[in-house]
Amino acid sequence: MALFWLVPIAGVGAVLFALWLARDVLRRDPGPPEMRDIADRILEGAMAFLRRQYGTIAYLSVGVALLMGILLAFLGRSDITGDGRVDLADTLGLGWRTALAFLLGAFCSGLAGYIGMYISVKSNVRAAAAAARGGLREAVSVALRGGAVSGFLIVALSLLGILVIYYAYGGPNRLVFDPVYQANVPIAPFLIVGFGFGASFVALFAQLGGGIYTKAADMGADLVGKVEAGIPEDDPRNAAVIADLVGDNVGDCAGRGADLFESTAAENIGAMILGVAAYAAATRSNIPRPEVWVLFPLVMRAFGLIATAIGVMAVQGKEGENPMRALNRGYFLSIALSVVFLAIATWGMMGQATANPVWLFLAGLVGIATSVAFVFITQYYTEVYYRPVKSIAEASRTGPATNIVAGTSVGFETTFSTAVTIGVAILLAYWLGNHLRLPNGEPIPHGGLFGTAVATMGMLMTAAYVLAMDTFGPITDNANGIVEMAGAGDRVRSVTDRLDAVGNTTKALTKGYAMGSAGLAAFLLFSAYLDEVAKVRGTPLEAVNLAKPEVFVGGLIGVMLVFLFSALAIRAVQRAASSVIEEVRRQFRTNPGIMTGQARPDYARAVDITTRAGLRGMVAPGLLAVGVPIIVGVILRAEAVASLLMVGTIGGILLATFMNNAGGAWDNAKKLIESGALSNPGGEKVGKGTPTHAAAVVGDTVGDPFKDTAGPSLHVLVKLLSTITLVMAPIFI
Amino acid sequence: MALFWLVPIAGVGAVLFALWLARDVLRRDPGPPEMRDIADRILEGAMAFLRRQYGTIAYLSVGVALLMGILLAFLGRSDITGDGRVDLADTLGLGWRTALAFLLGAFCSGLAGYIGMYISVKSNVRAAAAAARGGLREAVSVALRGGAVSGFLIVALSLLGILVIYYAYGGPNRLVFDPVYQANVPIAPFLIVGFGFGASFVALFAQLGGGIYTKAADMGADLVGKVEAGIPEDDPRNAAVIADLVGDNVGDCAGRGADLFESTAAENIGAMILGVAAYAAATRSNIPRPEVWVLFPLVMRAFGLIATAIGVMAVQGKEGENPMRALNRGYFLSIALSVVFLAIATWGMMGQATANPVWLFLAGLVGIATSVAFVFITQYYTEVYYRPVKSIAEASRTGPATNIVAGTSVGFETTFSTAVTIGVAILLAYWLGNHLRLPNGEPIPHGGLFGTAVATMGMLMTAAYVLAMDTFGPITDNANGIVEMAGAGDRVRSVTDRLDAVGNTTKALTKGYAMGSAGLAAFLLFSAYLDEVAKVRGTPLEAVNLAKPEVFVGGLIGVMLVFLFSALAIRAVQRAASSVIEEVRRQFRTNPGIMTGQARPDYARAVDITTRAGLRGMVAPGLLAVGVPIIVGVILRAEAVASLLMVGTIGGILLATFMNNAGGAWDNAKKLIESGALSNPGGEKVGKGTPTHAAAVVGDTVGDPFKDTAGPSLHVLVKLLSTITLVMAPIFI
Repeated sequence: MALFWLVPIAGVGAVLFALWLARDVLRRDPGPPEMRDIADRILEGAMAFLRRQYGTIAYLSVGVALLMGILLAFLGRSDITGDGRVDLADTLGLGWRTALAFLLGAFCSGLAGYIGMYISVKSNVRAAAAAARGGLREAVSVALRGGAVSGFLIVALSLLGILVIYYAYGGPNRLVFDPVYQANVPIAPFLIVGFGFGASFVALFAQLGGGIYTKAADMGADLVGKVEAGIPEDDPRNAAVIADLVGDNVGDCAGRGADLFESTAAENIGAMILGVAAYAAATRSNIPRPEVWVLFPLVMRAFGLIATAIGVMAVQGKEGENPMRALNRGYFLSIALSVVFLAIATWGMMGQATANPVWLFLAGLVGIATSVAFVFITQYYTEVYYRPVKSIAEASRTGPATNIVAGTSVGFETTFSTAVTIGVAILLAYWLGNHLRLPNGEPIPHGGLFGTAVATMGMLMTAAYVLAMDTFGPITDNANGIVEMAGAGDRVRSVTDRLDAVGNTTKALTKGYAMGSAGLAAFLLFSAYLDEVAKVRGTPLEAVNLAKPEVFVGGLIGVMLVFLFSALAIRAVQRAASSVIEEVRRQFRTNPGIMTGQARPDYARAVDITTRAGLRGMVAPGLLAVGVPIIVGVILRAEAVASLLMVGTIGGILLATFMNNAGGAWDNAKKLIESGALSNPGGEKVGKGTPTHAAAVVGDTVGDPFKDTAGPSLHVLVKLLSTITLVMAPIFI
Repeated sequence: MALFWLVPIAGVGAVLFALWLARDVLRRDPGPPEMRDIADRILEGAMAFLRRQYGTIAYLSVGVALLMGILLAFLGRSDITGDGRVDLADTLGLGWRTALAFLLGAFCSGLAGYIGMYISVKSNVRAAAAAARGGLREAVSVALRGGAVSGFLIVALSLLGILVIYYAYGGPNRLVFDPVYQANVPIAPFLIVGFGFGASFVALFAQLGGGIYTKAADMGADLVGKVEAGIPEDDPRNAAVIADLVGDNVGDCAGRGADLFESTAAENIGAMILGVAAYAAATRSNIPRPEVWVLFPLVMRAFGLIATAIGVMAVQGKEGENPMRALNRGYFLSIALSVVFLAIATWGMMGQATANPVWLFLAGLVGIATSVAFVFITQYYTEVYYRPVKSIAEASRTGPATNIVAGTSVGFETTFSTAVTIGVAILLAYWLGNHLRLPNGEPIPHGGLFGTAVATMGMLMTAAYVLAMDTFGPITDNANGIVEMAGAGDRVRSVTDRLDAVGNTTKALTKGYAMGSAGLAAFLLFSAYLDEVAKVRGTPLEAVNLAKPEVFVGGLIGVMLVFLFSALAIRAVQRAASSVIEEVRRQFRTNPGIMTGQARPDYARAVDITTRAGLRGMVAPGLLAVGVPIIVGVILRAEAVASLLMVGTIGGILLATFMNNAGGAWDNAKKLIESGALSNPGGEKVGKGTPTHAAAVVGDTVGDPFKDTAGPSLHVLVKLLSTITLVMAPIFI
């Protein structure tokens, strides 16, 4: 248990580390005035969006917290006082605690997102300035460290938030008798599920709003700029260009950050709930310190923070080297350290608690291996060196229709490796966990599920590093835009172009990682939901029986929900993009000086229009996602909701896989053609300006809302379904 | 039970009616020699394809029948002799009977498809000739009656095949003791499941092969003709034009026919299996004639045949009237007669068997209402008068990318009404069925499931009429092509154009209907699977428990399978289309006389290339669909397969909904623009030749393999999953 102290130490340490990284980035040269001027506009737009978005989310959160508290207090069933009866003292206590945990989760997620994005937007101009001085190495370092601020704040605040609320709600001291396991167990893990729901709630709106914003600006700027006016990307004459740069931050940085904040938080809570069964068994057998089963997830996360901090510090690019190699070295160092730390955590903390800690270690290893597998799968399907992207580029020769058909086919195909990887990981971790025994040889109840929980934790150990790489993306993308707009010349542009290409890869990898972890986390949370239902009913829910018609219909609604949600998200992008297009066209028309370069377009107005459209668009799909499971739960009850959750999760993961990977593959098929890799039978290069390239641009544009709005929002939706049903379980019985 | 004699009488009567219709069509004027020449080429191509396709399917079928028979004989577990032990006599008997039933189902499906298509291809030129003589009314009559040959043969052969094999395997006389229901029950319903699997097997390859053929020819002809060479659709200079016309027949007529042959067969068998539970209860209570519970499904189908025959005969188009109105009158007459006949069948046959036949009648009514609901839903989402298609047409103004995004969004959205309709139908029919009581007041075991079975039967009562309308599509499409190629002039073309537009609508409606019935049938077959497992194990499979990891993984694989299958189907179309494009280009290049009209292109070669590509393309997805459930069943066992089946069904139905409706909406968005309904802010029409129209053509082309290959093949896949698991259940235990 001495290792337990690592949790607060690593958590606070990670926050301090993030602040040190932030100081390190901020003290660097912010570049010449023309760059700073552009960066200031991006900062202004990004912060304005974030403030308004968080304002809307805050209102919604308070409303949901109140409603949830009241519903649980007056319709819930739970015996949290452990006196064997369900009375108002129980349900009132459950109501306010869940609502408070919800608000804390929402607040921590928002805080991490806000600070992380502030530093990210401050980093872009410093990366641009470093590139302008010719320092590829320094530019990589600035972009990664700027991104790491976000990564470490997210993981650390999620860990500290759970730690604080767990102890505030009684932690190991508040024990109630559990009729299912026939032992006194801590009630706190069941009371803190609101924290995960709060995190999901913010993540849903952050990812949706940010995703709609970024792609509306991107599609709008591209369609009116590149296609209609024939000016290059990031050209300062395009009124939507600042909105486009702002979008990269609010979508990839703030959105994905909230997504992974939620993954780490929800998964910690789910694993703690599953640990309660082992706690009960250990208590019954009078084995000392049963609480290690509940706290082990937090310790694994703390070790993960240390492993990734070392990984980030170790990244030292070399001049002339592909920056991706440097990032990969850091990543694999983090992975290697995670394996070592996993061993230390397992034997150090669980050596006394189980007769055979090796099975725990192996289950954690399965998770780590899964995270590496997702990196390779994503690379195979979205990078230019392999068959899928090449086939899409080839199909572009016969026009946009065959490009779309080929991309759809590749995207559908990618569900195969995703499903097999997640399936193998779950079955293997479950099988390993089933071997766990108490020191007295007694099997651990739900040992298999605890195995999958440890695997999920293993997968998320490197979350902070992956997040740092992810935020590297918008920073380098912005740096590239700033260099272009400031007219810094081709030499500098070639440096930032290389950084930008690396950023595209890291963004794609993060989506694969987020999706894989969502798959594992959802199974874990689902199992936690069944435990929660058992706790509330006093008897276990034996099964989620698809043979019952209402359970089948619950599943049908679950998959329908992910399609309908995606439809609304995609439509919101399209509507918002139309507003952007109209505004840019209006500016070109009313102010002819813009096109000749004599007048500056009104960037702020385009930013403002995108902001309003993004916020408007996020409300309907968000409320749909929150409302449907509650309505189904109230009408068709707990088992149908469980089916909605599980079948919806399966559908959501695979639909997200399709949209993320098809989008990434279309994007890179276009880049492959631009690189001149295709040639005609006559031998001449097929490049920019040819019909083949135009066809590939269509695919790229279609892929934008798929891969950056609907797909990532589906990860969040899947986890939101889990947390919302977990929280509302007491009213579905 | 006197009503039971209606089954053979209506079955044989329907075959005779089909032959009479065929004679009626064939004795009509086959038109002038230039039309007959074209029609002969279509006939030749279609029959060549069908012969080779059925040849391949025959080989595969014999292989599968042998393998299945051997697997069941040596690995199966079943007590079909009813002596309380499982020995080789049981499993050998199960093996050969299932294999034989499989071959009979495959043969009947193939026979119905072959004759139906022969008449369909003979009808097209007669419809064209009638149109040339100015007889819209006669043309409608020829096309509908030609289509009805196919429709009636399919439904009648499926009914007669089941009747024959049911009695051949002992029918009501071969009783065994059922340990679950504690009564002697007929074993025959469990022995004839192979018939449904045979029908599924042929349907899968017929729909896949036909779907790949038709869209490869269509995409190939369009991309190289309309886009590259700038010649109109159906222009005789295009070498792929005959292949395109052949494709309409092999896809829409033979493919969809096999699909609905399977629906009617599998659903009859499933309903008979579910009737066994009621049979057992009636036997225990000594109620006379318990076999009505098993035979009622067949009687409903027989009444459906009579209702639809009257509907077909009643269609008398009026000159100057929209032909759709005439078809609708016939359809609603069939619906009204079905309601009346349902009442007669219920009270006439089941009046003595149940205390309250009204619940049966109401459950059947739910099914009939569901079929009408699907017709309206499909119309709303795919016709030009409503928001969805209009929004896609509007989105085409900003290019192909926004057209694709808008269509995807509409397609995703359509899953909502599909899921709600199917969900409500299942829950309502189940609730109604639960009220059923024996005359002594005892509840009927699985009464709810029997209610859903009766609803499914109600939905399929009008199958023959719907099929006639469906085959109306390729006949009028072909008639239009023949008129164009024979140069019959604009006046005639305007008549066949109107017929063709009606055919597009009826084809879309059939897909909606086929999809809805697949959804209901799958739930029914799934329930039958659980009964089959219970019968084999001697104890019921209590649940399909998604909380078990292997069951969750089974579901994950199920949804993955529908995505991967679609990916392969779409890719096969794309590859086959490339072969067609290359061939047409080659002919234009090597024979310059084609373009000037001095030389005729080599149609036969294009037909041959498409045939080979279509057959090659159908094998991989077909074997995938058959192999995956067996592999999962052998490794993860019965419960995981049940989950694969149910979750895969949910995913498959909704993915098919997306693809069918998105495809239909894209198609009609293009037509809406061609009709001149859109105009610029300046007031000028946006029609053919504008960038907006070009963008809409891209969506139409993308939608082709969605709506005519992958989507319809998914209906079949969903039902194949049911029948294959039903048949192989004895080896998954």
